[in-house]
Amino acid sequence: MQAEIITIGDEILIGQIVDSNSAWMAKELNKNGISIAKIASISDQQSEIVAALQDSLERVPLVFITGGLGPTNDDITKKTLSDYYGMSLIQDDALYEKIKLRLEKYGIPMNRFNREQALIPDKARILLNNFGTAPCMWFEKDGKVAISMPGVPFEMKGIMINEVIPAIKAKYNSLSIFHKTIMVQGIGESVLAEMLSEWEANLPQSIKLAYLPSPGLVRLRLSTRGENKQILELEIEKQVAALQEIIPNNIFSLEDLPMELVVADLLMKKNCSVGAAESCTGGYIAHLFTSHAGSSDYFMGGVVSYSNEAKQNILHVKESDLLKHGAVSKAVVEQMAEGARQILNVDYAIATSGIAGPDGGSDEKPVGTIWIAVASEKGIVSEKLQLYKIRERNIRAASLKALNLLRIQLLK
Amino acid sequence: MQAEIITIGDEILIGQIVDSNSAWMAKELNKNGISIAKIASISDQQSEIVAALQDSLERVPLVFITGGLGPTNDDITKKTLSDYYGMSLIQDDALYEKIKLRLEKYGIPMNRFNREQALIPDKARILLNNFGTAPCMWFEKDGKVAISMPGVPFEMKGIMINEVIPAIKAKYNSLSIFHKTIMVQGIGESVLAEMLSEWEANLPQSIKLAYLPSPGLVRLRLSTRGENKQILELEIEKQVAALQEIIPNNIFSLEDLPMELVVADLLMKKNCSVGAAESCTGGYIAHLFTSHAGSSDYFMGGVVSYSNEAKQNILHVKESDLLKHGAVSKAVVEQMAEGARQILNVDYAIATSGIAGPDGGSDEKPVGTIWIAVASEKGIVSEKLQLYKIRERNIRAASLKALNLLRIQLLK
Repeated sequence: MQAEIITIGDEILIGQIVDSNSAWMAKELNKNGISIAKIASISDQQSEIVAALQDSLERVPLVFITGGLGPTNDDITKKTLSDYYGMSLIQDDALYEKIKLRLEKYGIPMNRFNREQALIPDKARILLNNFGTAPCMWFEKDGKVAISMPGVPFEMKGIMINEVIPAIKAKYNSLSIFHKTIMVQGIGESVLAEMLSEWEANLPQSIKLAYLPSPGLVRLRLSTRGENKQILELEIEKQVAALQEIIPNNIFSLEDLPMELVVADLLMKKNCSVGAAESCTGGYIAHLFTSHAGSSDYFMGGVVSYSNEAKQNILHVKESDLLKHGAVSKAVVEQMAEGARQILNVDYAIATSGIAGPDGGSDEKPVGTIWIAVASEKGIVSEKLQLYKIRERNIRAASLKALNLLRIQLLK
Repeated sequence: MQAEIITIGDEILIGQIVDSNSAWMAKELNKNGISIAKIASISDQQSEIVAALQDSLERVPLVFITGGLGPTNDDITKKTLSDYYGMSLIQDDALYEKIKLRLEKYGIPMNRFNREQALIPDKARILLNNFGTAPCMWFEKDGKVAISMPGVPFEMKGIMINEVIPAIKAKYNSLSIFHKTIMVQGIGESVLAEMLSEWEANLPQSIKLAYLPSPGLVRLRLSTRGENKQILELEIEKQVAALQEIIPNNIFSLEDLPMELVVADLLMKKNCSVGAAESCTGGYIAHLFTSHAGSSDYFMGGVVSYSNEAKQNILHVKESDLLKHGAVSKAVVEQMAEGARQILNVDYAIATSGIAGPDGGSDEKPVGTIWIAVASEKGIVSEKLQLYKIRERNIRAASLKALNLLRIQLLK
C-alpha cells in the first residue's frame, strides 16, 4: 500500500535543518510493505497544514506527519489537526503527571508551555511516546488514517518502532516490497551502466533497477513487489548471482551496509584489531568505526597526525622522508601506517595522507592527490589516489577507499 | 517572492538517501529574498513529475527541480520536461564534445548513455554546468519558470551559485528576507521559552521567532521581510541586544556558525593551537575541526584512545588511575588532556571519556556519563556530564560541550 509523509516546520524550508526523518521513515515503512508516494515539507501555518493533509488524503489512505509538536508558540500542529478532525483539546492527566515528574527530575518548575503539552485531542487515539512529552496522535476518518509524531529524530524513531509500525501492521495486510541493494566500489556510474546494459535489458519486467551513486561508491538497487515474499526473494537472488559474475571484484556487500561495518565483520571473524593514522581524512575513519556500538571490540584507536610534528613525534615518521618526499607521499603514508600499527598494538593499521583541498595543491600534487596505506604483519600495501576538488568529497571517498584497501587485505 | 522545490528520485522515497540538497537550496534562495513555500520529493515516473510540476506552477511563479538527469535508464526528467513544454530533444554539439573529452581523459569510450546525455530540449535556455555533464535547463511559459538541475550535490551547488542565482537576480526584483540566528548552548528548549516569554511577547508583529533544538544546542531564529534590508537589519539587531541581556552567558554566536568555527576563530585571534584526546567521541571532534578548509592552521592533531592501552602508551595516562577510577573518570580525562597537550605540543587540548552507549553502563556510571576536560598552560578544567541513552546523540552533544568548555577558557 501507499502512504505519504508531511514534515512541518519552517526550519526545513529555510534550510536550517536537513530532513533526515523522512528518509528514515521511508526506509522503515518500505521494509513493512508500505511505499512512500510523496514527501512534502511545508511551513508551520494552519492553512498549509490543512491543505497538505487534504491533498495527501485524496491520494493515499495513510499519512505520516512529523513536527510542530514542541512546547513553543510556533508549534501549532496539535491544535490544527484537532480542529481539522472536529475534536477538542482536553488535558491528559497521565501525560500531565509524566511531564511534571520529568521536570521535577531536572529541578525545573512547570510552566504554561509544559501544561499545554499535556493537552490531547479528545477523540484521537494516543500512542505511547516513551522518549519525550509530545503526544503521538492517530486520527481516523472515512477509512483513512493520519498519524502525527514529534519531529525530534530520536523521539520519532522510538515511537515509529515501538508503536506506529505495530499498529499499522495490526490494521492493514499490505503487499510485500522487496529491495536488494548491492554495494559497488571502484567503477563510476556510466561505465557501470555500460557493463551491465545486457544484464539490465534482460531483467524481468517486475524488477526495477536504480543506480545510486555517492562519493566513492555506487549502490545498485533491485526492487520488486508482490504477495509472496519468498518468491520475490528468489527472483532477485537469481539476478544478483548473474550480476556477481559480471563484476565479481567490485561488489563489497550484498546488503546496504556501510563499508566500515563490512570491514568490522571481517575483522571480528578473523579476531583481528585495527587502528588508524589519519592526516587528510582528519579523524573521519575513526569516527566511522566508532559510530557503531561494539566498535571497541576491534577498533583500538587512531592518531590524527595533522601536523608534521605529530607525524614524527607520535607515529615516528622519519623527518628526512618528510623533507625529501613531503607529507603526501608513499614513504610517509607507509611509515604512518606502520607507526600506528606499532604504537596502537593492532593487527592492521590504515593510513591516509593527501591534499583534501580546496587549497594547498601544486602542479605536481594537485588537490585530490591522496596516498592510502594498510600495514599488517604481512607487510605494507599503499596506493595513490587522484580524487576530487572538493574537501568533503575527498575526506569521504579517501576514507572509503582506505577501508576498501583494508577489506581486500582481510580477504587474502 | 515564493518558490517551490521538487526533488525527483526513488532513492529519497525509499529512504536510501537523505535529501540534503533541498535544505542547501532553501538556505541560498532565502539569502536572496526567495522563500520556499513547499518541498516535494517524488518518484522518477513521468506522471508524478508532470503532476508535481503543474501543482507547483499553480501556486508559485518559480520551481526548482533536481534529480533524474543521470546517464542511466531510470533518469527520465529531461525527456519528461521536454515533452511537457512541447519541445524536442536535439544534440548539443558543444556538450557532446565536452562529454567526449571528459571520457577520453579517463580512457573511457563513449557509449549510448553518454550520447544521450548530450541531448537538450531545443527551446530551453541551457545554463552552464562546469561540474559535470548533465545539462541545467531553464523552462519558461506564461511568465512562470521551472529550472531543472542534476541531483548530485556538488554539481547542483556549483550551478546554483554560478548560474541559477545570478540569472534569477537578473530576472526578478524580489523583497528581502532577513534571518538572524542566535546559537544558544546549555539551556533546554522549554526552559528557554519560559525565560524568553516576555521578550517574545513584546517582539514586533513583523518579526517571527522559531526555536530550533538539536543535540547540545538550541538555535533561535528571528525572521522578517520587507523592501529595505537596512531597516530590517536594524529592527532585528535591537531585539538581539535585548536578548543578550537575558541570557548573556549562553549565546555562543550571533551567526549560524558551528561551534568548532566559533572556537577556531578565537584560537586564530589568540594565535593558539589545539589538539584532542578522544575516547567516547571517537574522532568526531577531530573530524569537526578538519572538515573546514584551513584547519591545519590551528588544529595540530588528535589521539583517538579507544583502548586503555592507547590511553597509557600514547597519552601516558597512569595505569594505577585507570585501575582505581576506571577510564570514565576525572583523573583519567584530565591526564588524557594534559598528555595530548604535551605529545601534540599544542596550547590547548580537549579530552573526552565516557559511556556513549547503548551498552556498557553501570548503576554508578550509566550510559551517558561523560567526562570532558581542557588542558592549557593555565591548568586543567574538567566537567562531568550526564547526557542521553543514544550513542549518536552522546557523541555529538559531548563533542559540542567539550568545544564549549574550550571556548569559555579561550574567553578568559
